[in-house]
Amino acid sequence: MDFVAILAGVAGTRFWPKSRARRPKQFLSFGGGGPLLVETFERTKLVAPPARTLVVTAAEHAESAARLLPQLPRGHVIGEPAGRDTAAAIGLAALLVSHPRGLPGARSDASLLVCPADHVIGPPERFAAAARAADELLARHPERIVVFGIRPSGPATGYGYVEQGAPPGAGEGLEAFEVARFHEKPTLEKAREYVASGRFLWNAGIFAFRASSMLAEIAGQMPELARALDEAAGSLGTSRFDGELARVWAALPKKSIDHGVMEGARRRAVIVPDYEWDDVGSFAALARARKADAAGNVALGGCVALESRGNIVDAGDGLVALIGVDDLVVVHTDDVTLVCRKERSEDVKRLLDEVKRRGGLDRHL
Amino acid sequence: MDFVAILAGVAGTRFWPKSRARRPKQFLSFGGGGPLLVETFERTKLVAPPARTLVVTAAEHAESAARLLPQLPRGHVIGEPAGRDTAAAIGLAALLVSHPRGLPGARSDASLLVCPADHVIGPPERFAAAARAADELLARHPERIVVFGIRPSGPATGYGYVEQGAPPGAGEGLEAFEVARFHEKPTLEKAREYVASGRFLWNAGIFAFRASSMLAEIAGQMPELARALDEAAGSLGTSRFDGELARVWAALPKKSIDHGVMEGARRRAVIVPDYEWDDVGSFAALARARKADAAGNVALGGCVALESRGNIVDAGDGLVALIGVDDLVVVHTDDVTLVCRKERSEDVKRLLDEVKRRGGLDRHL
Repeated sequence: MDFVAILAGVAGTRFWPKSRARRPKQFLSFGGGGPLLVETFERTKLVAPPARTLVVTAAEHAESAARLLPQLPRGHVIGEPAGRDTAAAIGLAALLVSHPRGLPGARSDASLLVCPADHVIGPPERFAAAARAADELLARHPERIVVFGIRPSGPATGYGYVEQGAPPGAGEGLEAFEVARFHEKPTLEKAREYVASGRFLWNAGIFAFRASSMLAEIAGQMPELARALDEAAGSLGTSRFDGELARVWAALPKKSIDHGVMEGARRRAVIVPDYEWDDVGSFAALARARKADAAGNVALGGCVALESRGNIVDAGDGLVALIGVDDLVVVHTDDVTLVCRKERSEDVKRLLDEVKRRGGLDRHL
Repeated sequence: MDFVAILAGVAGTRFWPKSRARRPKQFLSFGGGGPLLVETFERTKLVAPPARTLVVTAAEHAESAARLLPQLPRGHVIGEPAGRDTAAAIGLAALLVSHPRGLPGARSDASLLVCPADHVIGPPERFAAAARAADELLARHPERIVVFGIRPSGPATGYGYVEQGAPPGAGEGLEAFEVARFHEKPTLEKAREYVASGRFLWNAGIFAFRASSMLAEIAGQMPELARALDEAAGSLGTSRFDGELARVWAALPKKSIDHGVMEGARRRAVIVPDYEWDDVGSFAALARARKADAAGNVALGGCVALESRGNIVDAGDGLVALIGVDDLVVVHTDDVTLVCRKERSEDVKRLLDEVKRRGGLDRHL
């Protein structure tokens, strides 16, 4: 690929108290090779060099991101003045790799791989192979927008699904298909049907396309975003750009790339990579990503347990001690401990609402 | 009373991770008026002024204790070079309040009230009244050693018991009895018998006596300790004292005042104070000392809970968040979190053995 854009804009509360408003998930380590953003960057370096890589993140996190990625040239971390969901972030990336006053090497038909900063993918070589397959597919079908679809390991209800159509052919020994349809997160019943059919893939949020194709789809389907990008482009490469971007971004509605572009795009394809993938959507993912001990406990950091089974522990730099407890998520940070029944981890959001309601505890959010 | 000696030598692991090797229980606050040692000092000031008060603690904690009690004159915090249990600590206190080169005002028949630094007692006025009753009893029976015995609220197996004999009479409207016998911590069955008999009291570890009586009992029953005190006394008031004490203390066996003196003492009495008493022996004591919320959760510090019942939480300066968990003890500190089923809190000691065995985690002990 000519360029890689890493989307590091996710806020999310599912990892509180490990993640905070000022320290979102992509800046955290989940037991691999450092923070997820750094792991992602190390992986995308196999696809494009740092000089052809950009990171789109929230303005307030731009400095942290730049510090974590010293190999990235100055100006390659783009701080969005406000989170406007993935369509806007991807549109902005497409603008920057295609506009003459964008990144060095930008050209209108530059190919771009877009991927989230907060997924666990391995091994990296297979990720690179999938990107090469996307490249080959784009060489034959330059107008398509390619999405990566993961062959489901079960009827997950937390992901959108891509329904596959006829195979347009891909390289690297990987399967590729036309996209019959995009489907939103399903009910469990629906998810079971999808998986049983063998024709549904998880939408993993990774896209490959030529910038011109994406901007054409945006122009056709999201005129408001297209106009905003046009207006921002007017000051691209000048000191007025940040202010202009803030102005036009403020008025934009939030829309995901799936809703805004992919569902209605005319020319699409889905590639099925063969790497291991985890979106690390909750602490329960630790139980997949890390080996459990003999008692079925999975721990990041120091953990000592007596007569305790099936717990998921993140001790950070500290120590978590368990006595006689089962099936808990225990997350220790300097100032906060969360103790949550494993199947209740979705309720962290509700808990944070309660923390806000109570008042006086904002420093822990 | 002429003098008060506060025994602040307890190490103990039952409050780990709130208590540590370097920050024992008596230096911690359990939701009352500051650290237990300070609460104790505020209470004993009603019995004797700071100039007539001494604190016996471990040498390594002497500085912390002195810092917490700025009203105490210099030299009134005695750091034991090694912990030798209560008989040695009380013998040392008796020496200091009776020897001509001991504390200002020392004289051989000085009366001394000895009490642990880590109990919760209230209200303070009733404690003072019990001390006055002991004083009156000592005025009539100067040779007795008086122990405070708490009327049991249940068949506790964690305390020694004092079996009462005939009443020798006490003041302040309090009961007092001869001591028929001291009993060690009983089995549950025994404890039930004790409580049913109505003649057994909890040994609360508070003693009142004239220094001369205590030193005479030590001379008769604990010749080794008596010799050690004699040798140390030789350098009392000189710069050699600390070194001498270290030397003689090193060779002493550990023995409690109950085993070493009280069980065999000739003249004893037990006074039954009418204050509220809690030895704060485990986190479960928090459930007694503090009011539970509507869901039966008891918390020190910040705690937010969803669908959680009957938990005991100590969040320190931080926040503990609970989702869907019942009957746990959760203790959060900067570097360690303990999550323990409520009825298992006795196993913290075993857990610490495991922490030691594992190695590399000593900084959390």
